[in-house]
Amino acid sequence: MKKELLEIFDNTYPDRDYTIEIVNPEFTSVCPKTGLPDFGIITVRYVPDKTCIELKSLKYYFLEFRNAGIFYENITNKILDDLVAALQPRSLSVISEWKARGGITETVTVNYKSSH
Amino acid sequence: MKKELLEIFDNTYPDRDYTIEIVNPEFTSVCPKTGLPDFGIITVRYVPDKTCIELKSLKYYFLEFRNAGIFYENITNKILDDLVAALQPRSLSVISEWKARGGITETVTVNYKSSH
Amino acid sequence: MKKELLEIFDNTYPDRDYTIEIVNPEFTSVCPKTGLPDFGIITVRYVPDKTCIELKSLKYYFLEFRNAGIFYENITNKILDDLVAALQPRSLSVISEWKARGGITETVTVNYKSSH
Amino acid sequence: MKKELLEIFDNTYPDRDYTIEIVNPEFTSVCPKTGLPDFGIITVRYVPDKTCIELKSLKYYFLEFRNAGIFYENITNKILDDLVAALQPRSLSVISEWKARGGITETVTVNYKSSH
Amino acid sequence: MKKELLEIFDNTYPDRDYTIEIVNPEFTSVCPKTGLPDFGIITVRYVPDKTCIELKSLKYYFLEFRNAGIFYENITNKILDDLVAALQPRSLSVISEWKARGGITETVTVNYKSSH
Amino acid sequence: MKKELLEIFDNTYPDRDYTIEIVNPEFTSVCPKTGLPDFGIITVRYVPDKTCIELKSLKYYFLEFRNAGIFYENITNKILDDLVAALQPRSLSVISEWKARGGITETVTVNYKSSH
Amino acid sequence: MKKELLEIFDNTYPDRDYTIEIVNPEFTSVCPKTGLPDFGIITVRYVPDKTCIELKSLKYYFLEFRNAGIFYENITNKILDDLVAALQPRSLSVISEWKARGGITETVTVNYKSSH
Amino acid sequence: MKKELLEIFDNTYPDRDYTIEIVNPEFTSVCPKTGLPDFGIITVRYVPDKTCIELKSLKYYFLEFRNAGIFYENITNKILDDLVAALQPRSLSVISEWKARGGITETVTVNYKSSH
Amino acid sequence: MKKELLEIFDNTYPDRDYTIEIVNPEFTSVCPKTGLPDFGIITVRYVPDKTCIELKSLKYYFLEFRNAGIFYENITNKILDDLVAALQPRSLSVISEWKARGGITETVTVNYKSSH
Amino acid sequence: MKKELLEIFDNTYPDRDYTIEIVNPEFTSVCPKTGLPDFGIITVRYVPDKTCIELKSLKYYFLEFRNAGIFYENITNKILDDLVAALQPRSLSVISEWKARGGITETVTVNYKSSH
Repeated sequence: MKKELLEIFDNTYPDRDYTIEIVNPEFTSVCPKTGLPDFGIITVRYVPDKTCIELKSLKYYFLEFRNAGIFYENITNKILDDLVAALQPRSLSVISEWKARGGITETVTVNYKSSH
Repeated sequence: MKKELLEIFDNTYPDRDYTIEIVNPEFTSVCPKTGLPDFGIITVRYVPDKTCIELKSLKYYFLEFRNAGIFYENITNKILDDLVAALQPRSLSVISEWKARGGITETVTVNYKSSH
Repeated sequence: MKKELLEIFDNTYPDRDYTIEIVNPEFTSVCPKTGLPDFGIITVRYVPDKTCIELKSLKYYFLEFRNAGIFYENITNKILDDLVAALQPRSLSVISEWKARGGITETVTVNYKSSH
Repeated sequence: MKKELLEIFDNTYPDRDYTIEIVNPEFTSVCPKTGLPDFGIITVRYVPDKTCIELKSLKYYFLEFRNAGIFYENITNKILDDLVAALQPRSLSVISEWKARGGITETVTVNYKSSH
Repeated sequence: MKKELLEIFDNTYPDRDYTIEIVNPEFTSVCPKTGLPDFGIITVRYVPDKTCIELKSLKYYFLEFRNAGIFYENITNKILDDLVAALQPRSLSVISEWKARGGITETVTVNYKSSH
Repeated sequence: MKKELLEIFDNTYPDRDYTIEIVNPEFTSVCPKTGLPDFGIITVRYVPDKTCIELKSLKYYFLEFRNAGIFYENITNKILDDLVAALQPRSLSVISEWKARGGITETVTVNYKSSH
Repeated sequence: MKKELLEIFDNTYPDRDYTIEIVNPEFTSVCPKTGLPDFGIITVRYVPDKTCIELKSLKYYFLEFRNAGIFYENITNKILDDLVAALQPRSLSVISEWKARGGITETVTVNYKSSH
Repeated sequence: MKKELLEIFDNTYPDRDYTIEIVNPEFTSVCPKTGLPDFGIITVRYVPDKTCIELKSLKYYFLEFRNAGIFYENITNKILDDLVAALQPRSLSVISEWKARGGITETVTVNYKSSH
Repeated sequence: MKKELLEIFDNTYPDRDYTIEIVNPEFTSVCPKTGLPDFGIITVRYVPDKTCIELKSLKYYFLEFRNAGIFYENITNKILDDLVAALQPRSLSVISEWKARGGITETVTVNYKSSH
Repeated sequence: MKKELLEIFDNTYPDRDYTIEIVNPEFTSVCPKTGLPDFGIITVRYVPDKTCIELKSLKYYFLEFRNAGIFYENITNKILDDLVAALQPRSLSVISEWKARGGITETVTVNYKSSH
């Protein structure tokens, strides 16, 4: 969860609105109630302003959740907050889709839009 | 159908509109006409206000329908009413998709939007 | 085609707009030109007002087309007219998707919206 | 069910064993118990000897079942018997796969092998 | 689990080996440990001798498991034993495929072959 | 390309806006550069006014392109022009999707809307 | 149908049995009865002996059928005969799968094995 | 990357807005960091004004990236800039979807709209 | 990797050969070279003799690999050895299918057969 | 094509026959006739004897083909020869599946079995 792992690089085309979507189908964390692992697909979609996220650093950031106990809703909102802080994007969404537990699946979608 | 089974917990991010979607592909109830079981997929999608639904309690709530005789349209509306009463969400939808009977399938979609 | 076969029942939730979708993938009628059978999927989607359609009666209504010679466009419009007359719904659509004849498929979509 | 509808033509390559598979996904007959239609996919697979089946005549033969009341197992065996009588093939199989009734599907497979 | 519910009818083609496969994707029983429902797909495949199983009676037989607490392995073997006793078939298989529990699925396959 | 092949029939429901979609997945023409055949899927979607297109005549119209050398963009626009002239529809679209050439696929979409 | 179009090249690994499978999903010919086009997928699978088939020449060979009137069974056997004559392979199969006509599909499979 | 490879031809239907979509699922370039190849699917969608892109020249233009080291975001923006310069279209989009690296996929979407 | 976590229960039908297949699509371990997580699907298929594996204990056994550094080939063989030691089955297979690394996937299959 | 790039490591379980399958869906080489790139999926399946192939070295070995002009049949046989020389496996297969060229796909399958 150490958000300082997130590295950025300069957006070469800052004058243009365009969209970057990143999908990590190999996300895993731990349920804080049962201590059992959860498995999910994390999608990040954003319109960069001055900076873009470096993919490898994002991967290492996601790995920090591997043994952390945290609820679906909170993971999704925290990833959004960390990425918004690092990137200061024009807009950014995080979608987390979780494998079934007790036969039931959950998907959480959070959106951010810059007020500039 | 005992809606008091539904447990809630505090929404950690009440200042932000975000969406939670829960899918239960293992829902079953009983047709009040024939006494034969019906099988369906129940999807709940909502924007939480002050509270979120606890997943395990929702699972036990759904189990209460297993031996209850109730029509497709009424199940779907009742689940909406019970969840709106428990959660007081900003908005909430319930979609029920039913396996074929006599070669024919049915899907019922009900939407709620808070007037606040 | 006897529309009097259609049975209705009271809508328990008339104060709320909600949607019912019914799909019959086993529809068959006869081409009036060639006398050969046609096969299609009929989808009915409606927002009920005071009444809902009884599924079994709808099935028997569909069976009346089994040996009737009628064109794709006319079947679709007639089913819409019969269901609107029986249900007086807030809105209703009929979609018919037909298996390939001579390698070519056809889909007909008709929509009705109450003027109340 | 009039098997005399089946027309044959000369096999141009009788010195060679080869296989012809014909699939009709638009087969329908009537359940003798309920009077309701059944829908199935009929597959015929055979090694011709001196003759092949003419496709259009096979289609008309299948149409004879449209309003006939007959069980799954008997349809499948009867089609095999009729085709063996008409074609006298080296071998022949009939597979019928039926759409769900009461949520349950059935498939019947019958094989014939010439004793020559 | 009352096997006396199983009804049979005479095989019209007893001189020929052929195969009947029946699939019930809507099977449900109860886990004897947790009391929670299990959901599975049951496939029965057999070569009839003098009798065939009546589909509707098989459906009612399956319904008897709805509220019974019984393990995957035992259900599968018991269905095989009951069907062999009722049908005395030339051969018979039962395959049960279970929805994920704790992210893990199980499939059990049992085969019977008459020694005649 | 002889558009006079296109036959029409009277729209029985001219007072109502509805949509007819026709898909021909077996379209083939010839590349005017290489002389090699092209293969595509042609979709026609329209809202009829006073007339509908007769399906069999449309099929024969499409067959006229089989040995004609013409570019993707021009075929699509020409089919639109011919159908608009024949049908005078309220609106009409033609979509052509072409199989890969040199590993690259192309799709052309043209829309017409009556100014009445 | 001019088999002299087929070009071959030397098999670099004649000491080893290996398999080459070629699939042409864009085959078309003409029905000799109706004059209407047929569409199919042709699969050629062979174990080369001293020579392999040159792909581009095979493509031009297939194009010769585009406007030829010939039955499914005869096309398949003729392609086998032409390829066996050109390649003298250790073994060779031709499989032709045809798009539905009158709702019915056909697949023809022919096998050759060298007697050396 | 030599954009002068791009050839254009006259749009035969300049009076009409219509859409051309081109998909190249066989795009490959090189990661400037690791020197390892990247694989992607490039989609170009545009509304032509006076000119259309010649497909074969577009293919050769894409081949220029095969051994070039360039980031996902920059490739996508550069292709857009080069195509806009060559075509001066009414609007144009480029979408690049990249195969997983370290289990993570990325998609970049850039849109251009003429200000005329 | 503590194999003592594996619990067994008595096979109720030891006189009959039957097959149990268990699939865990949520397996994860760590690459001993890079320290990065690997993700795989583990399938266990066996014919029980006197005992069966208890599913929940198998799940906890699999969890022991979550933070262990071990190669694909060794994991697969070790799981086989541990399960054979615990179950003494008539036969047992382990199949591990690994998500792509560097664009490349690997599957390892190990089989055991009792010599009794 | 430098086979000395292939690195091996000791097989920890040499007393047991087991299978390793490796799939590389991102293989590309160059057609020696046209100079244009080919794209394929390479599958290697083998039973190791004393050694296993190191995955990363196999990846670098495959990369050597990126700008090499070589036919489908020869690539497949050469990969087999190089891997057999490096691994001396009990058996080994190479399967190459190539993307369509001129609408036609090819698959080459080569098998090796040790004579020990």
